[in-house]
Amino acid sequence: MTAVVNVFLKEGVLDPQGKAAHHALDSLGFAGVSDVRIGKQIIINLETEDRATAEAEVKEMCETLLANTVIEDYTIEIN
Amino acid sequence: MTAVVNVFLKEGVLDPQGKAAHHALDSLGFAGVSDVRIGKQIIINLETEDRATAEAEVKEMCETLLANTVIEDYTIEIN
Repeated sequence: MTAVVNVFLKEGVLDPQGKAAHHALDSLGFAGVSDVRIGKQIIINLETEDRATAEAEVKEMCETLLANTVIEDYTIEIN
Repeated sequence: MTAVVNVFLKEGVLDPQGKAAHHALDSLGFAGVSDVRIGKQIIINLETEDRATAEAEVKEMCETLLANTVIEDYTIEIN
């Protein structure tokens, strides 16, 4: 099974990477951009074939390591 | 309109971030993980409401700035 985890800064938390990309796009002439936010996408190949086990395990991985839950939100998709 | 761009290292290119996360998960006791790959997810708010224009613009943004096309692949999703 494959888990796709998207980790993003919470609304209201300054996103310096996104701001930098936005300014760079502006200076390259891409005018029609109102906002840019950058996060991480983590693809985890899991040995288990049980969806519930996979979901619970990946949630714990996020809470423990993959996301800083003070300033980040995350979503989990199991395929 | 919103564009979601996923930027990933090409197959065969070493992913040090992914390797580090994989080792960390192992040492935290998450045994059932066979591989971890980490990429960027970029969310771009566009002023245009025309899908074709948005797609073309974001593709050019990727080729110009957002992805290093020598070692990275990217996908674009327009919502």
